[in-house]
Amino acid sequence: MSQGAVADFGLIGLAVMGQNLILNAADHGFTVCAYNRTVSKVEHFLNNEAKGKSIVGATSIEDFIKKLKRPRKIMLLVKAGKPVDYIINDLLPHLEKGDIIIDGGNSHFPDTNRRYEELSAKGILFVGSGVSGGEDGARYGPSLMPGGAEEAWPHIKEIFQSIAAKSDGEPCCDWVGPAGAGHYVKMVHNGIEYGDMQLICEAYDIMKRIGRFTDKEISEVFATWNKGVLDSFLIEITRDILAYDDVDGKPLVEKILDTAGQKGTGKWTAINALDLGMPVTLIGEAVFARCLSALKKERVLASKHLTGPEIPEDAVKDKKQFVDDLEQALYASKIISYAQGFMLIGEAAKTYGWKLNNPAIALMWRGGCIIRSVFLGEITKAYRENPDLENLLLHRFFADAVIKAQQGWRKTVGLATTYGVPTPTFSTALAFYDGYRSARLPANLLQAQRDYFGAHTFRVLPEEASETLPVDKDIHINWTGHGGNVSSTTYDA
Amino acid sequence: MSQGAVADFGLIGLAVMGQNLILNAADHGFTVCAYNRTVSKVEHFLNNEAKGKSIVGATSIEDFIKKLKRPRKIMLLVKAGKPVDYIINDLLPHLEKGDIIIDGGNSHFPDTNRRYEELSAKGILFVGSGVSGGEDGARYGPSLMPGGAEEAWPHIKEIFQSIAAKSDGEPCCDWVGPAGAGHYVKMVHNGIEYGDMQLICEAYDIMKRIGRFTDKEISEVFATWNKGVLDSFLIEITRDILAYDDVDGKPLVEKILDTAGQKGTGKWTAINALDLGMPVTLIGEAVFARCLSALKKERVLASKHLTGPEIPEDAVKDKKQFVDDLEQALYASKIISYAQGFMLIGEAAKTYGWKLNNPAIALMWRGGCIIRSVFLGEITKAYRENPDLENLLLHRFFADAVIKAQQGWRKTVGLATTYGVPTPTFSTALAFYDGYRSARLPANLLQAQRDYFGAHTFRVLPEEASETLPVDKDIHINWTGHGGNVSSTTYDA
Repeated sequence: MSQGAVADFGLIGLAVMGQNLILNAADHGFTVCAYNRTVSKVEHFLNNEAKGKSIVGATSIEDFIKKLKRPRKIMLLVKAGKPVDYIINDLLPHLEKGDIIIDGGNSHFPDTNRRYEELSAKGILFVGSGVSGGEDGARYGPSLMPGGAEEAWPHIKEIFQSIAAKSDGEPCCDWVGPAGAGHYVKMVHNGIEYGDMQLICEAYDIMKRIGRFTDKEISEVFATWNKGVLDSFLIEITRDILAYDDVDGKPLVEKILDTAGQKGTGKWTAINALDLGMPVTLIGEAVFARCLSALKKERVLASKHLTGPEIPEDAVKDKKQFVDDLEQALYASKIISYAQGFMLIGEAAKTYGWKLNNPAIALMWRGGCIIRSVFLGEITKAYRENPDLENLLLHRFFADAVIKAQQGWRKTVGLATTYGVPTPTFSTALAFYDGYRSARLPANLLQAQRDYFGAHTFRVLPEEASETLPVDKDIHINWTGHGGNVSSTTYDA
Repeated sequence: MSQGAVADFGLIGLAVMGQNLILNAADHGFTVCAYNRTVSKVEHFLNNEAKGKSIVGATSIEDFIKKLKRPRKIMLLVKAGKPVDYIINDLLPHLEKGDIIIDGGNSHFPDTNRRYEELSAKGILFVGSGVSGGEDGARYGPSLMPGGAEEAWPHIKEIFQSIAAKSDGEPCCDWVGPAGAGHYVKMVHNGIEYGDMQLICEAYDIMKRIGRFTDKEISEVFATWNKGVLDSFLIEITRDILAYDDVDGKPLVEKILDTAGQKGTGKWTAINALDLGMPVTLIGEAVFARCLSALKKERVLASKHLTGPEIPEDAVKDKKQFVDDLEQALYASKIISYAQGFMLIGEAAKTYGWKLNNPAIALMWRGGCIIRSVFLGEITKAYRENPDLENLLLHRFFADAVIKAQQGWRKTVGLATTYGVPTPTFSTALAFYDGYRSARLPANLLQAQRDYFGAHTFRVLPEEASETLPVDKDIHINWTGHGGNVSSTTYDA
């Protein structure tokens, strides 16, 4: 196994994603060196999936390093968290200045920021790269979102863009930005994925509970939708899942326990949105919907005590209209979710001082990844037309789409409200739309309340300014006629 | 000014809350020593508000310490964050074992956990106490939520329970729990306050935009509601605010800029809910509603491009019914919000290993604080009946209330949906109710999707288990017929 520096690329971590990325790179003519801490995994991989391909294995870190051409390009596909630091520490004594470490795991972007700083100081070029597309994506073309040390990009660009998915001939991989920007954008991608999945679940639930559709019928609806504006990977697999029968001929999906986990990147996105003060409500609700799903026992108990409206058999009179309305609801909600996602990315760029490339981000998500869709082609187009677009909803294409979709959207949410089927993401998307297009929101009352009970002060609407209510000044009113005139600077109670 | 150890209690920080707490304690017969880093503030206070009361001042930390009886009981009412640490560090060289420091600011509970640990090691009893009620509360009876070093409680109980608000003769102050538990409960209180305020804003907005009520009419509605199940401080002040005219005779509230800040405890609550995996959706939406309000410029722009439904003049035919429905919507949503808040507190107790006292928490919020209400009396009653109540919604009183309220609630949300008035918290509360009472949610489809694209595995419903679908096992299906059989343990993409 000792052939000198033969490999263009090294990869550590032979779980399914790592194995598939190696096979993908080998298919594109690169020689890859595979390594795993449990070395038996390397052997097994070489003797099976990797057999006959331009893939070599390493029996130790030293062996691995020896087999890599310089500057060494080492990708880690290991569990996010401590394992990444452990492997970096194992590698460090063997590396030279200018060598490149790429973390392809789902690391949290503050960790990537930290590793980028630490490794920069040692002359190592650190890249944090989002990788999306699941097993199949890794094997046949993932979406790759690399960020970090920009000097690394010329060295890894060819291999990254070769193995990445292509959309209309363009690779779904480009340089994202500095430090943890790659993992940041991947985090938002995953948050949006949470949202898309929850939206689809709500559509399925409405068809099942209000429309009384069979799973086969629902599958056919998704098949139809997959030919229109909703054409996307998640709609496609939903079509297939709903058509998949268990050995007894019944739909398998109906046998699956309805509890989902949420310890990952969706939660990070929602927390980051709160931290940056951006109303990314749809992802927030999608994460909370998973939390609620996890309370299965309590829900079963509650279902016996908390009644709701009966859903009559003929709740849906015009099935075609019902499905069309639902499609509009899903489409409009999706537009809101992506608009919110890009609002968050824009705010992050400002807050963290990153220069980010919106059209490139949309293109990276266009193919290869879990949220890939025709729709992202439209977003790419919109940002290419105007990279500084303040909000997707202010672009003519999306404004028209959401305005046109709103009737069906409102009808769908109304139906779910009437019949007691929960639609947290459809509903929050609509509330956001109606809030976003409101020049006046009722926060004036809220500011009055805060000033009333806590002397927190308020500002006046410029058009209502007067001698006693000066514009751009913090104003406190003694609403009660008693109490002091000291305004509060230390309290938020 | 040098009278020896005369003071029962010392207080540092003479902003409005600090001053008022001192005056409150003096009214109850305690001698209080006041100190402030800007010493001129002490002098001003002594010569004005404090004149003729059992209040002494200190000119330096040394002087302050000298004037306190032992064990010294020192309360800090300074800006949360670094200032608390600075003052603690200033105090430390002068303190003796068994002295008590009480942080009455809005500190984040992890900071309180840390300070509790650090000061315990030095023999100082550290208490983090929530204080709520704003200016007036501090002056005439706040809600106090102390937690931390339990050995301190016998020393501060009398003064705390004397100055606290009373509800049916009981003080709205009791020992909360260890470490940062007091500030934790205060944080959730503030989150709930965010929710209550947003709910009221939505009710006002619906009356204004759909009902075309004048502010005076809306004020009268709140006045009526304040005599029923919604009887509470926030409803009361809303009544007054809407009736408050500017010098030109027009309602002042309509002149206030509709943008609210959200950098505080509401955000912490939502983040904590995400961290603990509890679906505290109403507070989440309330925080995001503030974020959206802050995007005023963008909203004004969007209002010109994004159209919505016309609201006809006669949208509301039966005003009485409309107002009754709205009251039900507000009441039901409030029940959901408090149920969510107590779910979060319950999960925190489990996660952080705190023994918390639910009836005492409800009682502490019953009076004095911003969210004080008749409603909290019912919660106190429910938890006294059954301190281990799994969920407020499973208590007969609240279950009946929400079941009875739901028709008006659904009609209100339906109306807002139809006419394009944003109701993020009414809507999310309803979605939560319908989700919580669903024995089956569509998360089965979500789990199938995750297994399809990422080999994340799923579990089977126990009643659907079979030889190929064993119960309590992680199951992976090869949905596509191609791809590997390696299940994913490292990925969440």
